[in-house]
Formats: sequence, structure tokens, C-alpha cells
Amino acid sequence: MNRVYLDRIAAAPLEPEALEAMLPFLRESFGNPQSLHREGRQAAEAVDEARERVAALIGAESSEVYFTASGTEANNMAVKGLALAGAGKGRHIVVSAVEHVSVLNPARSLERQGFKVTVVPVDGTGMVNPADVEAAITPETALVSVIMASSEVGTVEPVAEIAAVCRGRGVLFHTDAVAAAGSIPIDVRRIGADALSLAAGQFYGPKGAAALFLRKGARLQPLVEGGNQESGRRGGTENVAAIVGMGKAAELALKNMAARNAALIPLRDRLLGELPRRVEHTVVTGSLEHRLPYHASFCVGFVEGESMLLSLDMKGVAASSGSACTSKSLKVSHVLLAMGLDHATAQGSLIFSLPNGADAEGVERVLEALPPAVERLRAMSPLYTEYLKGKGQSDVHR
Amino acid sequence: MNRVYLDRIAAAPLEPEALEAMLPFLRESFGNPQSLHREGRQAAEAVDEARERVAALIGAESSEVYFTASGTEANNMAVKGLALAGAGKGRHIVVSAVEHVSVLNPARSLERQGFKVTVVPVDGTGMVNPADVEAAITPETALVSVIMASSEVGTVEPVAEIAAVCRGRGVLFHTDAVAAAGSIPIDVRRIGADALSLAAGQFYGPKGAAALFLRKGARLQPLVEGGNQESGRRGGTENVAAIVGMGKAAELALKNMAARNAALIPLRDRLLGELPRRVEHTVVTGSLEHRLPYHASFCVGFVEGESMLLSLDMKGVAASSGSACTSKSLKVSHVLLAMGLDHATAQGSLIFSLPNGADAEGVERVLEALPPAVERLRAMSPLYTEYLKGKGQSDVHR
Repeated sequence: MNRVYLDRIAAAPLEPEALEAMLPFLRESFGNPQSLHREGRQAAEAVDEARERVAALIGAESSEVYFTASGTEANNMAVKGLALAGAGKGRHIVVSAVEHVSVLNPARSLERQGFKVTVVPVDGTGMVNPADVEAAITPETALVSVIMASSEVGTVEPVAEIAAVCRGRGVLFHTDAVAAAGSIPIDVRRIGADALSLAAGQFYGPKGAAALFLRKGARLQPLVEGGNQESGRRGGTENVAAIVGMGKAAELALKNMAARNAALIPLRDRLLGELPRRVEHTVVTGSLEHRLPYHASFCVGFVEGESMLLSLDMKGVAASSGSACTSKSLKVSHVLLAMGLDHATAQGSLIFSLPNGADAEGVERVLEALPPAVERLRAMSPLYTEYLKGKGQSDVHR
Repeated sequence: MNRVYLDRIAAAPLEPEALEAMLPFLRESFGNPQSLHREGRQAAEAVDEARERVAALIGAESSEVYFTASGTEANNMAVKGLALAGAGKGRHIVVSAVEHVSVLNPARSLERQGFKVTVVPVDGTGMVNPADVEAAITPETALVSVIMASSEVGTVEPVAEIAAVCRGRGVLFHTDAVAAAGSIPIDVRRIGADALSLAAGQFYGPKGAAALFLRKGARLQPLVEGGNQESGRRGGTENVAAIVGMGKAAELALKNMAARNAALIPLRDRLLGELPRRVEHTVVTGSLEHRLPYHASFCVGFVEGESMLLSLDMKGVAASSGSACTSKSLKVSHVLLAMGLDHATAQGSLIFSLPNGADAEGVERVLEALPPAVERLRAMSPLYTEYLKGKGQSDVHR
């Protein structure tokens, strides 16, 4: 049975062209970009070229792109680095309630160091209101960080409006664009962001390559300190092959974005429209209007997300029920709770994130496999039994 | 002309077997180890296996190995993470004068946060005296960090003795084993280290994969915070392919260490013995007795290291004159100055670090190419001209 892989938020397959671009740097061109000899200069040129390609994807200058090893590292570097460098202004930061743990946990860590953290709420679709950000800003606010798009519910936030609020109040603005970069157009100038995180693995580049955009002139306390790599802002030997792969993937993402989205959006919309029709007590999570083109997410009542994943896996379908980064903690998503869903509903989280090459056949497999799987799982659910009792069984099986 | 690559401290070529092991994870097996589906479980198993192999290389348990993206990150994680977690005991740390910048700069960063930092001196061979470490420890000392072997001068430090001193005083001990791991036998239990950093790129594994050994039970404040990866101690999606490559390289390093060293030591010793004979005013730097098997380093008088590198590069030889991490800063090595060399002598630093497959032909190329190159460069040196004047020219050309 062919696998139907619909979990690109956890990991997207590496673009074959990106792998081709990487291979010379995993074989003969193994030099260190900091070395002064030929092997080093070759590696340095490759890193420079990749930096330009990544910059082009987000409308930045290449000197504003700092490579890191993961989106998580980029988020840590931005949140801790900008807050600590800006602590002279004040020790207050503002984040939204739907941030990834790689923003939330650094914020909590700053809180233990004496920072005050304000968490801005979201509406039922996971959307942040720029007015709420404005209200949260105080004269002590050093940094606001709001995610560009949620990998859990697909909602695309009004980051340009939020950035404008921050600029108006003289506050730095960072956005975690890990789920968005490569999939929706990003222009750091139009947004007005001071810092923006992106990760290659989310747009068919390799794991181990990511970047922080940092507006020219922004001050930052480095996270990983050592040598002069990345203009002294992030030490450690450059992961040349991964960086080259990220550059190639960025180039392809920019070139093919419209075509890719044109192929994915109908599949996404088929899932968003049809799945709640086929599986009772199912709601779409996140915004329908402002939504990542590859993202279909739901809460299915009276079932646990993890059980659905395992059932789907046996039917050859890979999906997720939240951020892979916290999948093994078995905690209910803080994003869904922030959107006002109750604990039981949030447990039924189910996310299909479509990679390039996803097809209608795969989507139909999901639509066929899920209803009987859910029915089987619900038969074992005490909550569901209770619900049936309350409602009268005939009513439910209509 | 074949290249003679003698700069493995900057970058070692990737072991073909390690690349072979990586390729499936750059192609079809692209899952995220945190995912619950089949693709995820496959990736998780591969990471587990690699963790066991890395643990075996250093005599650790696999649960004590935390993957990072670079030796620099591992050093930051150890120095900042252990010092901050141990700050309850006291805010004092001890490092040696010959640490890599990825230990020194985090130490300086802690100093700005109110820590006191004591830098222990070294002797003329770059060796740390355990008694000096003992003398530096105070009741407030939270952490001692001393490098296992210097990539700049090849000296292997008495880390087991230093660890014993620390243990006797109830102080945590970290060692940066980046230049040593994979090249000399390491047993974290025999050493008695609480933490130890190693990087795959130094033993023919890929760039982008490194690890911190952290003794079971040691407390650490995470550096890169996010998801539950690495037992919650280092967030960010695992770089599965690189980790697998590191595991394979660790396995090969352990298996082939004796044979590799048997091949490299005679070449190293040929350079150490012959180069000072052929190039006047040249001294070996570092210890001859306690020395990395692949490492031959010198200071050549009246020449700048960088000029020699460029001359050698044109003759097809890749070498270095210090840590690649700081090569472009053009500063004189703090390691050489700590060893008591004067500024002018330290500027003539020249390092040959031999990778697997280095051969006698390459070494002879160096021995032939360097003397005329140095002569040409010295002819342009005002310092040398002055020296000749003082000495009488006939005396020098004898």
C-alpha cells in the first residue's frame, strides 16, 4: 500500500534538486567557509549564494540573514537575543497565546530572569487582534513576538498590522514564520518586521538549516557564542551542505509558490469541506479565510487525536494532531485551548498538512478511512457512550 | 596538481560510509522522530541507534548523549547551562587560558551577567597544571571547563587529573573534547567528567552534528528551548541524517582509531622533526609528548601565518594558522600568547592537521614547498631585514 504522507508540518520531504545541490558539499567540497585556502573559499562562496537565495525568499538583504540549525534556534535567538539586548529600554515582552513552544518557552525563561511577559489572547479562529497587542504594550516593552501562521490550526496572523502597531510604539517586532515561509509570499519590508524566523525543512529543504532575518542595525545578544561565523552573531562551523540545500529550496519555493498552492488549495478545501460532513461532531479549527494553503485541521469529538493517528497510520496515512515538537508529551494543545475549545474537544485534534505532490487519491483515502476508524474508536469511548445515552441512540445514527 | 589537504581541524572530509548511511534520511526516510506514525518511528529508531554509537565512542550511556548542531553549541550549552543551573552554589567559573572561543566567549558572557571567571594559565607547551585548577577553585565555584586537546597546538591536557580535583572539591567539570573525540580514546567514566563536548565533523562525520555528554543527574539550564526533543534539554527538530552520519562516523572512529593513528603518527612526526630543520627560526608549538596523533604545529619566525597559508595554497597545500572559527579576525592566537610566545612569533603560526589518507607524498610536498615560500616572504619583511642587519647577513645564509 502506498503511503499517503500528509504531515509536512512535522517534516517535508527534501526536494531532489536541493539534495543534488547538497551532495558536492557532502563529498569533495568539504571545506570550512572560514578557512583561507581554496577549499574554504569554495565553501564560503556556496554559503554566500545560499544566503542570497534565502534573502530573496523574504525580501531581505543577504547581510540580514543569519543561518541557524533549526527554526527553534532562530526563535530562541530572536526572543532571548532581542529581549536581552533591549533590556535597557525595559524588561517586558509581549507574545500571543498561539506561539510555538520555541517562542513560549524562551519567554518563560526570560520571565524567570525577571522579565514580565504578557500573553495576548486570540479569537475562536486563533487570530490575534492588533488592538490587543497595542493594549499590551507598555513603556517598558522591549519586544513583541507574534507567529505569522500557526502550524496547528493554519491561521495566518495580521503580522503587518501588528508590526505597524509596534513600530508606532517604538517596540521591536519578531515573527515566527516557520510554518509560513516558502508557502505564502513574505516581504520583510512590507511587513515591517525587525526579525523573522524560517526553517528549510518546512519548504522542502533539509533539516538542520534555518535562518533568522534580523533587520540591519537591530541589536541582538547572541545565543550560540564562539567564532566569527554569521558576522559574530552565531558561532559554530557552518553546516555548508544544509545551507546550500536551504538556498536551493528557497529558490524553488519562490519560483513555484503559486503553482504549488494552486495544486494544494483544492485538496485542502476538499478536506476542510468534506471531512466534517463525513465525520459527525467534527469542526474545522482555525480561520477559513486567512489560512495556510496546505493546511486542513479539525477537532473530532469523542475521540483522541493520537488514536486517530494510529488508525490512519495503519491505513497508510501519516497525519498529526499537533506540533511534532510536543507530540510525545500527550498534553492538550495550548493553541486550541487559547481558541476557547474545551479540553475534551481539543483532545480530538487532527491535522492534515499537504506536501507537494499530494493528490486527490490520497485525500479520498483519508475521507474513506477516517469515518469507520472514528466509529470504531468512539465505540470504546465512555464519553461517547454517555453522550449516546443522553441523546437517544437512534438520534445519533441517523 | 593534486591537492594536499592538511586542515582537518577546520573540516575533515565526510566518511563515504557515513554519507551512505545518511542518504536514506535525505531521500525517502524523511520523517520527524517526534511523529507518532511510521515515518516518525523509523526516524526515531535511527536517532536512537546513532545515540548508542556516539555513547559507545566515549564510554557513556546513550541517555547521557544530547545531540546539538555544532561543537560550539555543545560548549555553550555546557558552560552556560551548567553555570546557570549551578548558580545557587556560587557564581564563579574556572576555565583554562587555552580554551576555544566557544568556551571563552560564553564565559565572558556569564561574566557580564555577574559571574566571576578565573582563567588558569598554561606552561610553554600549553599544558594546564591540575594544581593551578585546584588553587583557582573557591567555595563559590560552580563549574570548571578545561579543553581535552587543543586544535591549535595539539597538546592533550591532563583532564582526568583535573576532573579528580574538581570531584574532590564538589565542582562540576566540563571538557571540550571536540579536537580529541574520535582521535584518542575517551572514557567519560575514567575521566570522571560531568560534561563533554564532541563534534562529528572532527572525526569524518558530517557538519551540523555534534553532541554534549551530560552525566546522568547533572542539572542544566537549556540553551535552545522548545519542544521535547533531547529529553527536553535541547529543542528543535532532530537533524536525522546528520545524526545518523555522526553515529556511523563514531562507530568507524572507535573501530579504526588504532590503525588510523598508526598511519598518521609517523607523518606527524616527520613534519614535527623535519620542518624546523628546513626552515630556520621555526619552533614546534605544543607538547611533543602529550599530543594529538594528527597534529603538527609551528611558529615560523619573521613571517605571518596567513601569508604562508596563501603561498602553500598556491602550491596545492591546505593548512591553517589557528582556529578556523577566528581565522578571518586576523588576531593573534590567545592560545599561543598564553603559552608565553611573543606577539611577533605567534603571528607565524602554522598548523598541519592530517586527515585519514594523508600520505608521505603530501608531507614531502609541504617540506619542499615551505622553505622557498618562507624565504620569499621574509625577503619582504621589514622585521627580518632588521634582524639580518643586526646579525650580519653572512651569518644567516650559512
